[in-house]
Amino acid sequence: MSAEEFRKHGKQVIDWIADYMAGIESYPVRSQVRPGDIRAALPECAPEQGEPFDQILADLERIIMPGVTHWQHPNFFAYFPANTSGPGILGDLLSSGLGVQGMIWATSPACTELETVVVDWLADLLGLPRHWRTDARGGGVIEDSASSGSLVALLAALHRAGRARNTLYVSSQTHSSLEKAAIIAGVAKENVRIVDVDPDPLAMRPGHLAELIAQDLRDGYTPTMVCATIGTTSTTAIDPVRRIGELCAEHGIWLHVDAAYAGVAAVCEELRWINDGVAEFVDSYVTDPHKWLLTNFDCTVLWVADRAPLIEALSVLPEYLRNAATESGEVIDYRDWQIPLGRRFRSLKLWAVLRWYGAEGLREHIRTGVALADELAGWVAEHDDFALLEHHPFGLVCFRPLWPERSVADAEAATISLLDRLNDSGDIYLSHTKIDGRTTLRVAIGAPATTHDHVLTAWRRINAEYRALRA
Amino acid sequence: MSAEEFRKHGKQVIDWIADYMAGIESYPVRSQVRPGDIRAALPECAPEQGEPFDQILADLERIIMPGVTHWQHPNFFAYFPANTSGPGILGDLLSSGLGVQGMIWATSPACTELETVVVDWLADLLGLPRHWRTDARGGGVIEDSASSGSLVALLAALHRAGRARNTLYVSSQTHSSLEKAAIIAGVAKENVRIVDVDPDPLAMRPGHLAELIAQDLRDGYTPTMVCATIGTTSTTAIDPVRRIGELCAEHGIWLHVDAAYAGVAAVCEELRWINDGVAEFVDSYVTDPHKWLLTNFDCTVLWVADRAPLIEALSVLPEYLRNAATESGEVIDYRDWQIPLGRRFRSLKLWAVLRWYGAEGLREHIRTGVALADELAGWVAEHDDFALLEHHPFGLVCFRPLWPERSVADAEAATISLLDRLNDSGDIYLSHTKIDGRTTLRVAIGAPATTHDHVLTAWRRINAEYRALRA
Ligand SMILES: Cc1ncc(COP(=O)(O)O)c(C=O)c1O
Ligand SMILES: Cc1ncc(COP(=O)(O)O)c(C=O)c1O
Repeated sequence: MSAEEFRKHGKQVIDWIADYMAGIESYPVRSQVRPGDIRAALPECAPEQGEPFDQILADLERIIMPGVTHWQHPNFFAYFPANTSGPGILGDLLSSGLGVQGMIWATSPACTELETVVVDWLADLLGLPRHWRTDARGGGVIEDSASSGSLVALLAALHRAGRARNTLYVSSQTHSSLEKAAIIAGVAKENVRIVDVDPDPLAMRPGHLAELIAQDLRDGYTPTMVCATIGTTSTTAIDPVRRIGELCAEHGIWLHVDAAYAGVAAVCEELRWINDGVAEFVDSYVTDPHKWLLTNFDCTVLWVADRAPLIEALSVLPEYLRNAATESGEVIDYRDWQIPLGRRFRSLKLWAVLRWYGAEGLREHIRTGVALADELAGWVAEHDDFALLEHHPFGLVCFRPLWPERSVADAEAATISLLDRLNDSGDIYLSHTKIDGRTTLRVAIGAPATTHDHVLTAWRRINAEYRALRA
Repeated sequence: MSAEEFRKHGKQVIDWIADYMAGIESYPVRSQVRPGDIRAALPECAPEQGEPFDQILADLERIIMPGVTHWQHPNFFAYFPANTSGPGILGDLLSSGLGVQGMIWATSPACTELETVVVDWLADLLGLPRHWRTDARGGGVIEDSASSGSLVALLAALHRAGRARNTLYVSSQTHSSLEKAAIIAGVAKENVRIVDVDPDPLAMRPGHLAELIAQDLRDGYTPTMVCATIGTTSTTAIDPVRRIGELCAEHGIWLHVDAAYAGVAAVCEELRWINDGVAEFVDSYVTDPHKWLLTNFDCTVLWVADRAPLIEALSVLPEYLRNAATESGEVIDYRDWQIPLGRRFRSLKLWAVLRWYGAEGLREHIRTGVALADELAGWVAEHDDFALLEHHPFGLVCFRPLWPERSVADAEAATISLLDRLNDSGDIYLSHTKIDGRTTLRVAIGAPATTHDHVLTAWRRINAEYRALRA
């Protein structure tokens, strides 16, 4: 495709996306297709001759779009938000257009240096400790996902501890990516200890953690890493990082914090309390601008308090990557901070987002989500037919419809029907979790397009379906 | 950013990229900055208030561009190509614009199903075995990189073998990502066996592999995976897959093929011989459309002959991801085929590339690279002052300047000066490798913008600098 063809088709695609953004509410939130529908509509093999770009766009519209669930829809309340934004998309487009590889400093210095700058900026914006900045002992890096970030942290922890009967401590509420990281790293599943949580708000119990560590030490294990979560996936519970940190410090255990969803909320001063204990005790910390900070996937930031064990754990230097800059030690080679070798110029999108919105714009975005969640929680709390989970510091509200005079099994079935009816309608999309064995609705607010009216309409819709099912 | 602002700035970015493509030859190929230059030019912290998009683009031009090494430049001959193309960039832009998460089928069915279709298409285009298709026992998946793809393959192999004193077999020419995968997976570096290679073309010696396996079996190890490379990083050597495969079959060892760079060349019938033995013996195979097949990073395809051990090795199913489609077994959940949880709609870019170019266009692209490399190799072979590495089936040509009457150390220093002078000039960019301890120039041809004239000019340039240094 020539530069001029690119200019032409590129503008078509920009128009297509702008129209998509403007008209997103005309789509059902959740795709209505059945397994195999999209595949069946596509040809058996690639074309022999090239095809015009218009045809690709036409097929996108006709074949692909019906199979898309619209994560950017203002009525998308499932999982956690996965924000995109104009500047994020355009930063990413610039990265694709430049097409550079940033595996080492020497392969495109700006790719490394802009990344260092923006992760340092973000550390400051979130009020994270100065010593995590790259101009001190620590450092940040953009990873593709929190899962990979936590795996990298675990590898650093294993390196520091030495590999020998290593144990990892998580709670029953910890994201499954930690168990997956353990399996990948060869820490057997049996050596992942599950620490109990308090009933509400489902935060890790340091007392139980202490017992498990003591027992493991007696049994000759090497307690290697604890993962504390700030904002669990299920209910945004916050593990007591300070008390966990004291235990880790006592035993020299690596403390990792998974703040994938909630960490970015600390752009707002009034939410900085979530990081209590982080500055003093934490070895590594991940948060996802690709969830709630307007930066399209993939963009996780991992910070470490000390970059040495991370780099030692992951560097392998073959001849063809040797170069003067690396040998001088003056530069960062981010390939030693991640699983893959190759890397995109991902900092461009975070840079564009931080500049376009500024600190004020980002705070406003988070505050809007929190305020809307507060409002919804208020309505739920006032309603006798729903049980609200009191804890909702961020954009997620969890609640459960009550089904008086029904057995637990029937009530469960009714809740699941309610959820299915809502989601099947295509009007709104929620996900669920289980709390104390009971299916609970999760309404995660945070898409930039979501307003007061959308939340109110969603709440009315939930009520209406509930009344229909109770009748 | 509103949809209308996005429309406006989006078109500015498209124009910027089109101009960049059209004017790329005006830039020095390799960035001329010193460590720290870019960082020093950027502000200490993120702006408090948002900034206009024009300012971001102006700073891109003024601050970032001097730090960019132009991988898409027609005179970029370093490493391996990392192609972008118009349709690839636009497919990726659509993925950013839609902003969907494809971690499981249910979160956006089209993201999963289009991926299945395009990796099946690509398997057919490359003449790979039918049973690797997803409608048989195998299956393909898009990973971010060959490194991650090989790690995933190793995890499947470890799962199949059971974790106990596992050994991995590579050659001295195998890409460092395999050693890194071993370290990540907890296979200690000492258990990565290095198989000898033949002197030319540096391919793995099956005889030595057999000895190492036999010794390990005697010593109670579990030979778990052999990695054969089709197109090594250093010299595009091709390991004898068939003979290696016979050994693996005999001992039930997982055979992984790393064809990161060269695998895509099999779109051309006349290059299919590189896959001799693959259909019969191989368990997993990676190749990178993001290297030589016009699809911008990240886009590696990993195929497995049997998807069961892969999925078993990597699935962890928490409550919040449970859904009817997954439970029915009718759908693929690609999160179980990769390290991260979240995933972009990456198949859009490969789909756009396969359709825009068609099989014919892709073959022409590969043939052009091979033909230009042949031409260059011809010129080198005719020249008495350079020693050519005879083996150059793809787009890479390796050769070494001769420095008569100089000691080995002086000759080495002279070759390195030659390389530095060429690269410092900004006119062309090459990388190097060592063969038999001697620094050897690598000229990797494959950027779509590279023509006969660029290669000829590069060759003349190398000659001129060489003569200047010899004088
Ligand atoms: C607490 C937490 N950690 C990790 C993840 C995984 O995120 P990613 O897709 O970035 O790996 C999630 C995703 O929802 C999460 O909520
Ligand atoms: C043979 C081979 N394998 C693996 C890789 C790593 O590629 P990636 O960046 O996709 O991980 C390379 C990169 O040059 C390679 O040449």
